[in-house]
Amino acid sequence: MTKLPDPLAHRRADHAIETLFLRRWSPRAMSGEAVTPAELSRLFEAARWAPSTYNEQEWRFRYAHRGSATWGTFFDLLLDANKAWCKDAGVLVAIFARTTFTKTGKPNPVHLFDCGAAFENLALQGAAMDLVVHGMAGFDWARAGKDLRAPAEFVPAAMFVVGRPGDPTKLPPELREREVPSGRRPVAESAGEGPFPAS
Amino acid sequence: MTKLPDPLAHRRADHAIETLFLRRWSPRAMSGEAVTPAELSRLFEAARWAPSTYNEQEWRFRYAHRGSATWGTFFDLLLDANKAWCKDAGVLVAIFARTTFTKTGKPNPVHLFDCGAAFENLALQGAAMDLVVHGMAGFDWARAGKDLRAPAEFVPAAMFVVGRPGDPTKLPPELREREVPSGRRPVAESAGEGPFPAS
Repeated sequence: MTKLPDPLAHRRADHAIETLFLRRWSPRAMSGEAVTPAELSRLFEAARWAPSTYNEQEWRFRYAHRGSATWGTFFDLLLDANKAWCKDAGVLVAIFARTTFTKTGKPNPVHLFDCGAAFENLALQGAAMDLVVHGMAGFDWARAGKDLRAPAEFVPAAMFVVGRPGDPTKLPPELREREVPSGRRPVAESAGEGPFPAS
Repeated sequence: MTKLPDPLAHRRADHAIETLFLRRWSPRAMSGEAVTPAELSRLFEAARWAPSTYNEQEWRFRYAHRGSATWGTFFDLLLDANKAWCKDAGVLVAIFARTTFTKTGKPNPVHLFDCGAAFENLALQGAAMDLVVHGMAGFDWARAGKDLRAPAEFVPAAMFVVGRPGDPTKLPPELREREVPSGRRPVAESAGEGPFPAS
């Protein structure tokens, strides 16, 4: 099994945080090996405990193992740029969000936000298990709901792959050089006291 | 300092996961004590390392310490039901999401999803620090952008409080009984192989 590069060699926190946040990144190189149902259950279990408004748990995960009967239906939704490396995933997952409150049927303003929280738990759990978890917005959003038979009150929120770490030199050249844990802008550029500065 | 109830006494994972996911919950009882700028920096640092499409880091956090000049501007955005317990927070935070891609100006379909991922990192870091972090959708969404001077390309994504654990018996009666780490439906009800079942 290929070992993932160590994100801690590329990243340094400016303020003390749990190491897991730095260890999680979004590799593309995968080996093509399977992800087991037991591993997948652990990932979904992590997502399960995310917070959501009124405990709605708006997230629904639909997935396909590579080589299974429904893999093609999921894979065909991806843009070509993502197909190029997702072909070596173990599992391809589509997240759907319930847009309305269960009890009242009214619009839920945080259905996508809450799905993002659930995905992040899953991605962190994947990092803890040395699996590749890589989220994607590059898919056919209109077709995702239709081809995956989403009920009327659900919309796509994102897709992601799960896989085992692979050899980065086998990636297409333009992706190979990007196969490094990415940096971030400093906290001060994302957070500030009071309202936004007057422009 | 009041100690938080132990979520592990109320929750059991069906599949092995990092304990931090179970330890994170959304208490309402806060002591009114301050949250320090150094603590706040650690929370934002955790959020910083969340994944986002094209590393956009769409999240912006605007915040007010209780007792500061801008606290009222933030607090007045909350619905009364939230004001009742948020008055004892140390910090009140509004998350804004950039709706468009930095490079192209085109709509970014995962701007709210990515903010949810960043918030979840922050909430988990808060749990690791024994702080209360509680997200909210119950605020005046239209006024939030206006009163907090959000630039045109930003929309509110959520609000949340940070505080120190407090005495749950001082909560309003209807909230007191809900001051317990909540359960979740089983993984099998949120995740399944293949498209949604044909209806």
